[in-house]
Amino acid sequence: MADTLRVATIGYGFMGRAHAQAWATIGRHFDLPLTPVMAVICGRDADKAEAARQTLGYDEASDDWRAVVERDDIDLVDICTPGDSHHDIALAALAAGKHVLCEKPLANTVAEAEEMAVAAERARADGVRSMVGFNYRRVPALAHARRLIADGRLGTIHHVRAVYLQDWIADPEFPLVWRLQAEHAGSGSLGDIGAHILDLAEHLTGQQIAEVTGLTHTFVTERPLTEGSEGLSAAGGGTERGPVTVDDAALALARLSGGALATFEATRFAVGRKNGLRIEVNGSSGSIAFDLERLNELELHTTDQPAAEQGFRRILMTEGDHPYAGAWWPPGHIIGWEHSFSHEFVDLIRDIAEGRDPSPSFADGLHVQRVLDAVQRSADVGGWITIDG
Amino acid sequence: MADTLRVATIGYGFMGRAHAQAWATIGRHFDLPLTPVMAVICGRDADKAEAARQTLGYDEASDDWRAVVERDDIDLVDICTPGDSHHDIALAALAAGKHVLCEKPLANTVAEAEEMAVAAERARADGVRSMVGFNYRRVPALAHARRLIADGRLGTIHHVRAVYLQDWIADPEFPLVWRLQAEHAGSGSLGDIGAHILDLAEHLTGQQIAEVTGLTHTFVTERPLTEGSEGLSAAGGGTERGPVTVDDAALALARLSGGALATFEATRFAVGRKNGLRIEVNGSSGSIAFDLERLNELELHTTDQPAAEQGFRRILMTEGDHPYAGAWWPPGHIIGWEHSFSHEFVDLIRDIAEGRDPSPSFADGLHVQRVLDAVQRSADVGGWITIDG
Amino acid sequence: MADTLRVATIGYGFMGRAHAQAWATIGRHFDLPLTPVMAVICGRDADKAEAARQTLGYDEASDDWRAVVERDDIDLVDICTPGDSHHDIALAALAAGKHVLCEKPLANTVAEAEEMAVAAERARADGVRSMVGFNYRRVPALAHARRLIADGRLGTIHHVRAVYLQDWIADPEFPLVWRLQAEHAGSGSLGDIGAHILDLAEHLTGQQIAEVTGLTHTFVTERPLTEGSEGLSAAGGGTERGPVTVDDAALALARLSGGALATFEATRFAVGRKNGLRIEVNGSSGSIAFDLERLNELELHTTDQPAAEQGFRRILMTEGDHPYAGAWWPPGHIIGWEHSFSHEFVDLIRDIAEGRDPSPSFADGLHVQRVLDAVQRSADVGGWITIDG
Amino acid sequence: MADTLRVATIGYGFMGRAHAQAWATIGRHFDLPLTPVMAVICGRDADKAEAARQTLGYDEASDDWRAVVERDDIDLVDICTPGDSHHDIALAALAAGKHVLCEKPLANTVAEAEEMAVAAERARADGVRSMVGFNYRRVPALAHARRLIADGRLGTIHHVRAVYLQDWIADPEFPLVWRLQAEHAGSGSLGDIGAHILDLAEHLTGQQIAEVTGLTHTFVTERPLTEGSEGLSAAGGGTERGPVTVDDAALALARLSGGALATFEATRFAVGRKNGLRIEVNGSSGSIAFDLERLNELELHTTDQPAAEQGFRRILMTEGDHPYAGAWWPPGHIIGWEHSFSHEFVDLIRDIAEGRDPSPSFADGLHVQRVLDAVQRSADVGGWITIDG
Repeated sequence: MADTLRVATIGYGFMGRAHAQAWATIGRHFDLPLTPVMAVICGRDADKAEAARQTLGYDEASDDWRAVVERDDIDLVDICTPGDSHHDIALAALAAGKHVLCEKPLANTVAEAEEMAVAAERARADGVRSMVGFNYRRVPALAHARRLIADGRLGTIHHVRAVYLQDWIADPEFPLVWRLQAEHAGSGSLGDIGAHILDLAEHLTGQQIAEVTGLTHTFVTERPLTEGSEGLSAAGGGTERGPVTVDDAALALARLSGGALATFEATRFAVGRKNGLRIEVNGSSGSIAFDLERLNELELHTTDQPAAEQGFRRILMTEGDHPYAGAWWPPGHIIGWEHSFSHEFVDLIRDIAEGRDPSPSFADGLHVQRVLDAVQRSADVGGWITIDG
Repeated sequence: MADTLRVATIGYGFMGRAHAQAWATIGRHFDLPLTPVMAVICGRDADKAEAARQTLGYDEASDDWRAVVERDDIDLVDICTPGDSHHDIALAALAAGKHVLCEKPLANTVAEAEEMAVAAERARADGVRSMVGFNYRRVPALAHARRLIADGRLGTIHHVRAVYLQDWIADPEFPLVWRLQAEHAGSGSLGDIGAHILDLAEHLTGQQIAEVTGLTHTFVTERPLTEGSEGLSAAGGGTERGPVTVDDAALALARLSGGALATFEATRFAVGRKNGLRIEVNGSSGSIAFDLERLNELELHTTDQPAAEQGFRRILMTEGDHPYAGAWWPPGHIIGWEHSFSHEFVDLIRDIAEGRDPSPSFADGLHVQRVLDAVQRSADVGGWITIDG
Repeated sequence: MADTLRVATIGYGFMGRAHAQAWATIGRHFDLPLTPVMAVICGRDADKAEAARQTLGYDEASDDWRAVVERDDIDLVDICTPGDSHHDIALAALAAGKHVLCEKPLANTVAEAEEMAVAAERARADGVRSMVGFNYRRVPALAHARRLIADGRLGTIHHVRAVYLQDWIADPEFPLVWRLQAEHAGSGSLGDIGAHILDLAEHLTGQQIAEVTGLTHTFVTERPLTEGSEGLSAAGGGTERGPVTVDDAALALARLSGGALATFEATRFAVGRKNGLRIEVNGSSGSIAFDLERLNELELHTTDQPAAEQGFRRILMTEGDHPYAGAWWPPGHIIGWEHSFSHEFVDLIRDIAEGRDPSPSFADGLHVQRVLDAVQRSADVGGWITIDG
Repeated sequence: MADTLRVATIGYGFMGRAHAQAWATIGRHFDLPLTPVMAVICGRDADKAEAARQTLGYDEASDDWRAVVERDDIDLVDICTPGDSHHDIALAALAAGKHVLCEKPLANTVAEAEEMAVAAERARADGVRSMVGFNYRRVPALAHARRLIADGRLGTIHHVRAVYLQDWIADPEFPLVWRLQAEHAGSGSLGDIGAHILDLAEHLTGQQIAEVTGLTHTFVTERPLTEGSEGLSAAGGGTERGPVTVDDAALALARLSGGALATFEATRFAVGRKNGLRIEVNGSSGSIAFDLERLNELELHTTDQPAAEQGFRRILMTEGDHPYAGAWWPPGHIIGWEHSFSHEFVDLIRDIAEGRDPSPSFADGLHVQRVLDAVQRSADVGGWITIDG
């Protein structure tokens, strides 16, 4: 019988709910060296934490994360809070010797992220593992794309074009939720969804973003205030308004370390696009294209086909040969967005059991933070910014 | 705190695993009047049942379904076995006063299905509920399509064209699994996947299939024998071969009770199509089209748009206004095939709690059985067959 | 300088206009051994013929086809009239020693088509060529598909599924044009669009349709009368109505000579589908799929790819290696529907110059006529019909 | 009988051939107030000009454009040469009182374009018309999109994202054709294909590009020399190499005059993309999306639909209500790339006959030239550049 991995999830919002579904699911579909136990769900409001405990199926609820991360019976701290608390929770958890899984972006500032990466590196010496939650890396189509590129199937990479298009705040009456407040969210579309495509561009190509030029923009600068606004839900309606202090859209051009060129666009104003993370990579001998709204599909073009038979092929990513897919259902039975987390957690558990460092690390998270920061600085001052390290 | 609904699942194969995932998931996403408890998993092999118990998360394992269905602490018997045992298990469970959820097709013969429908009707008088598992009815896109058609958005229905295309046995070396043996499966593509599209044609249009002409065919008549072959997995390789006793493909034309015409094709030899349940319905003022490989999407055309703006629109079925979708993630975050069962079970639980008859009923399952039988008889004798009842 | 091929086009309606565009275009894009000369346009109404002459760019106009087909300075008679006059014109032209291109379907009855095929065969001895205008055979995607299948890239063919979906008469107020009158059109959707998919199923697979079972149906049995109704245009509006004497929709199942199964559906009531000729062919090692609304694309799946990279690839049929495509524009610059005729005429001219028999021949046209007849007879009597010859 | 418009086409390459097809076609499909006459085809090589005359169907050939543009019997000079000769030919033609149609980009430098715009404005006083050939404006889907946006159907425009993706020089052995030489082509992907998407962004939105930041890059800096290389054809193979003096790819971010943000990417290194001009526009109440490889389709999303029925609808642009489409074939019969020129020429002829100024004017062409120049300057110096005028 497998040993257990006792998990404390901090945050019961959208991300907490997604994590709970994955923790509760993976044991039925993957062979795990450690059995995850949903030990504690924790959040600021004790009543909501208790309600979440019942709904999500944790053993205990708490409203005191500082106490939770120090408990002897917790092995892993799973951080699902807004970005402004990542730093404090992660540092406390690492100091207490707990493995840490932290949602992305790693932090709200480069300075915070640097401290977190240092702390993670220090804890690593004691066998403490840490991981930042860029979950889309483990969508089967993207994991497969990375493998194909690493195997040289696309040749030398020339282009990346990546967009993350949403429309949930296109209505000017959508209220001023925490994701629109800089003090909680750090940034707007840039850090929330832009972080994903910046990370994926690097992850897929194996190149780093070397320099960027960007712009950010806020189309709607004031919005209705809402009481205790959380997550993506629109509960507004009052007449009072407050300032939107984050970007609605962020655009960037980039040069990558291996010579590729890239374009990035993250926006919450692309009416009709709900979760349009689209990424295309063109190499000298092939291309891949992906759309998160059809996450079970990968489009692949390679020039090694007979000339008259070349074309982008739509691969349905549900075959036993595809990353992670064999653990689920027979071919053709598609999986949902939620299982990007399932795959992330499976790999994390295996890494912890095997004593390996999970990927992406806090250092990777710090690097993305530096790119985000460079885009913002470029937007502020207007020129190209070189990324350090 | 909600009362419980204690479930005994009979069968730990592909379907048992799918059901387990749904039973374990729905409480986190839907408000349920009764909390499902995964009480017993049951199958013919005691060791496998115990392994399934651990993996799938049931409280107990058993290899004696007759004992299980009579236990006082079981409320619902969930039948996931091959078709040849549906009849006996369902009858025993109903006789014991248990609610019954039975996988489709309801039975392997019309005679069995008739007995089951009679038993269900009799048990109903005592408040015992029964349901047959045509899970695709509750894919959000199809539930939405049915609603649109019922609301008259498509006008008078003229055409249904439905195919269910798979390719998992196109390789002649794929072994002789139970699904290819008439004594276990009853029929081949006809009952396994054809049943789904026949049911959907009726469910979506609200019309019944009145007469059919069909053909069935077996392309590969002998296959390698395999030891203890189960489900869809290919474990073969031996040199001995046995006869395939079911159809590989089944085709039919039909006239529906409301005047619509329909074409049906179910095959396991459509190379490249993995789970291609596609259905299109054309009415006098609109059309819908659906593909299970993109189950989060519904295509809708209506003639009430400005002439120059008409076209099939791709609706991403993840909005709060869409059936079932609001319970999951924010818009644009797609769900997987598995949640067709989640939705089915949610409705079943609510019906049980409210004392309503679930749909589709055993009588509905019997009707589909009669259509399947008519297609087979037409294939045998070569003309049109009128469906009774 | 090339010799000329002097063309007399009989019929100035939709088809006449399409043919004129092709005759006038091919010389700019293909090397032709004979230069086509648009000598005469002919139709029943002298004024309309003269107007067509000016618009379409013919040298002369005529309202007397009998005189035209006997003129010494005419080399090819190009028949674009409704089906009820094909027989008489073709026979007269062949008797006069003219090459004949006849629009599909070859005739309105099997008896007519038989006479035409006999006449064509007889004329052939004198070097007179004849061709029936199944223009879709020469859409690059379909020509390529045929070649792939003939080369064995799909293996043994198991399935054909073909539909031709239109919606131009779904409105019950659309008038009673000639295409809805049996005395002119012979049949409705069956002969007009069904003929195309029946022909393509045979052409692509190289198999013949051996037996069929079918049904035909007329949804709207009376329509407004319209004065001088021609082609597809709706000029109606009067209050008087007349009977629709052709089918609105035709459905069939078929067995092909090489063991493949096929489904066919032709309808003018598929609301939202404008010109939806869709055909899919599944073989033991691959599949193709095509949609006329995207006629520059062919979807191809083959099982000779690495397992994890298989999928339907979208081939944009504009490469130099693709049939006919090299004569047009650089890759990626798509062609229109009209050039199915261009390609047909190019091949016809080359065949005439080289003394080869063009394909499809009148005998091929007769065969399709027999299949159409068998579908209609099956629809009338309700069982399977074997196709002779 | 209509008066004539006698056309002299200068240049017999790819563009000359495309123009010839349009001049020869439009009379069959559109009512024209002036009948175009293909009077003279002109190019540097007398033999090639004569061959083009025969193939393309012009009355005369010439190798002396200076003489041709002064002939009394020429009404319109149609410039299809590389960009380095646009300026001289256009100025001479305007001075001679001829209407001028000039291919895009208008010139190779802003200075040339300014002189051309001044000359056009001066000639305008004498009733001489001039037009620059941004043919994609008249693709029905894009003409329709512009109309929808102008009518306010998308609300306030927030985003434009436009790419023009090709792959014809991705092979490093593709030879050094004139389009890769700055002295002939001015720039590479920037002016050739980037010009189209910059123009479309402005044309569709009705906003002007106000400031840009960009980068250009040449992936392959040396290529095989080829003798008399022309157009897109690869005739190379020699061992000698010469420097590529234009960009292979150009990327830009932009702010538009009305507040919209835009991204642009033009590249000839997007392997698998043949003619991938894709443009999406997002407004506050709707979006459109277009792909030139499917030029008969427009995707439209509007928020005025019932919430549960919203989605991008695929409009097949072949209806009578669609711009230009009614002149062609019945609904569903798609047109080819070539007819973007047909529509351009129809409007030009009507404008000439009616004494209206055609659009886009040379002033519009000059504006695009300024934007191209700004992108190049930004690429050279690294910051944002404001566009004058």
